[in-house]
Amino acid sequence: MKKLLNQADRYVDEMLDGIVAAHPELKRVPGTQVIVRAHPKAKVALVSGGGSGHEPAHAGYVGDGMLDAAVSGSVFTSPTPDQVLAAIRAVDQGQGVLLVIKNYTGDVMNFEMAADLASMEGIAIEKVIVADDVAVENSTYTVGKRGIAGTVFVHKIAGAAAEAGLELAEVKRIAEKVIQNVYSMGMALSPCTVPASGKPSFELGEDEVEIGIGIHGEPGTHRESLRSADDIVDTLLERIFAKSGIAPPDRVAVMLNGLGATPQSELYIAYRRVAERLAERRIAVHKTLVGEYMTSLEMAGFSISLLKLDDELTRLLDAPADTPAHRQR
Amino acid sequence: MKKLLNQADRYVDEMLDGIVAAHPELKRVPGTQVIVRAHPKAKVALVSGGGSGHEPAHAGYVGDGMLDAAVSGSVFTSPTPDQVLAAIRAVDQGQGVLLVIKNYTGDVMNFEMAADLASMEGIAIEKVIVADDVAVENSTYTVGKRGIAGTVFVHKIAGAAAEAGLELAEVKRIAEKVIQNVYSMGMALSPCTVPASGKPSFELGEDEVEIGIGIHGEPGTHRESLRSADDIVDTLLERIFAKSGIAPPDRVAVMLNGLGATPQSELYIAYRRVAERLAERRIAVHKTLVGEYMTSLEMAGFSISLLKLDDELTRLLDAPADTPAHRQR
Repeated sequence: MKKLLNQADRYVDEMLDGIVAAHPELKRVPGTQVIVRAHPKAKVALVSGGGSGHEPAHAGYVGDGMLDAAVSGSVFTSPTPDQVLAAIRAVDQGQGVLLVIKNYTGDVMNFEMAADLASMEGIAIEKVIVADDVAVENSTYTVGKRGIAGTVFVHKIAGAAAEAGLELAEVKRIAEKVIQNVYSMGMALSPCTVPASGKPSFELGEDEVEIGIGIHGEPGTHRESLRSADDIVDTLLERIFAKSGIAPPDRVAVMLNGLGATPQSELYIAYRRVAERLAERRIAVHKTLVGEYMTSLEMAGFSISLLKLDDELTRLLDAPADTPAHRQR
Repeated sequence: MKKLLNQADRYVDEMLDGIVAAHPELKRVPGTQVIVRAHPKAKVALVSGGGSGHEPAHAGYVGDGMLDAAVSGSVFTSPTPDQVLAAIRAVDQGQGVLLVIKNYTGDVMNFEMAADLASMEGIAIEKVIVADDVAVENSTYTVGKRGIAGTVFVHKIAGAAAEAGLELAEVKRIAEKVIQNVYSMGMALSPCTVPASGKPSFELGEDEVEIGIGIHGEPGTHRESLRSADDIVDTLLERIFAKSGIAPPDRVAVMLNGLGATPQSELYIAYRRVAERLAERRIAVHKTLVGEYMTSLEMAGFSISLLKLDDELTRLLDAPADTPAHRQR
């Protein structure tokens, strides 16, 4: 294993220390793997998280206009209920807490258990479950569709709703609306290595890629020989169009998300084709994000997310945000 | 070669099309590899660039508070003088143009030739040459020290000076001050593949890393066995301290720059150690940037840059910026 680390069992702990050292506007809840804003705001609080290894998700989205806390489990492993509960307790300002959960069985179970415990302590709590990956119906760690990079749109839009002072039920309604309108699919050119295992999480042949892969290397729809960037983009988009029904006069936001090792130059080559295809279909693009938003360690590959917008979602998507991994005026 | 592309000879062209498709606030000068602001400002203009493959450098820094144009050569190849001249012509608003050049023989020669041609057309033109890499004195493509990620601090600070309406000589003076105070050094765990060659640019053994590597894979100070992240950070920092003389009561900005394939989690593990060492030496950190600022395609590895600040540099570093790759309020 050729990785930049000290000890595999201190990987997440040292990463979290690095995050708060680099970003004084964040702090770590002592004795936990929870990152919160150093200066909390009196508003509905948003908590997200999951296994580590997807950075900048989720700690990179803690800050103005997005999350209030991010809970990091071990690499590719759900955080425990007590960690999620610590996050909820740390951020509740009496106006309630919304949990944004990616649809993995462990995440859902542990976040729900924490929600039950928080409820018993009198904290108003709601949850939403993101399942944006259109590749497969069930998967290695998931019943139903998986939650992947489209989750970042939930953080952005529900975060803007909370920042605007909306109450818990409204913030939840808006988060649900994002979830109902976001569709994603990814592919990988190479695997990644979880530090604790020391070995690649799966193997791909010299010229082989996996279409529809999950962010932990879970199997997708099929493997095939490496084709051109345009062909790959077309394959992902065709499925997203088929599953989403997105068609004119729909207006979308697009995320072209790098999984870790794919150069930004190649993400833009892929985005060029996405833009071409959307133009051909006369689907208007309101906003585009190209970069690493939800990664899989050093996996090479990318995902495409399309979010169908209405006026409410557009306004909240355009609201300011100021977090380590996403800033806009 | 397992890369996300269509044809190697269309790599840069398609990347540039993707960048302007994703960022409508940028546009491409027709028939060139030059990216400029869609809405130019009446002020001193900043032009930078170099070979492609270092994205987001440099097109990602075109925008408010940073650059006015970025010129992209072929991958790891200097842009030609006519491309640089096209950039100068496109951005000159009559108040002059500052060229920010990384110290590579080809870049310096081609940017200087373009400057001469622009001068003959009556454009006021100045240049600065960034040579922040403390690893080696001369290198494969360079006489003197190489210019690497510290260049982004020049874009930010000189960009803020130009945005504030300072005249060309002042913007140049400030850029020179950044250059005199910025020190960088990098290392690689794995090589990268230039699309046109299709083969890794160099080879490293299974357990071998290269200390002091350049951003095109040029040799550094030595190769050694992979050690812990902390040991590697210490090695880079020791040399940076020795070459820079940075000591209390100096105040610095830090950039922990990923070269392409190193996960953000591992960049933060490395930054944690940087912060520890700076605290031990009682060197105050004013601002920290962790992420991919100047990459080498999908090379795994990172660089550290320290910029020694005075009040003037601090104020300009803290000024707002709004570009695809760097935004701050």
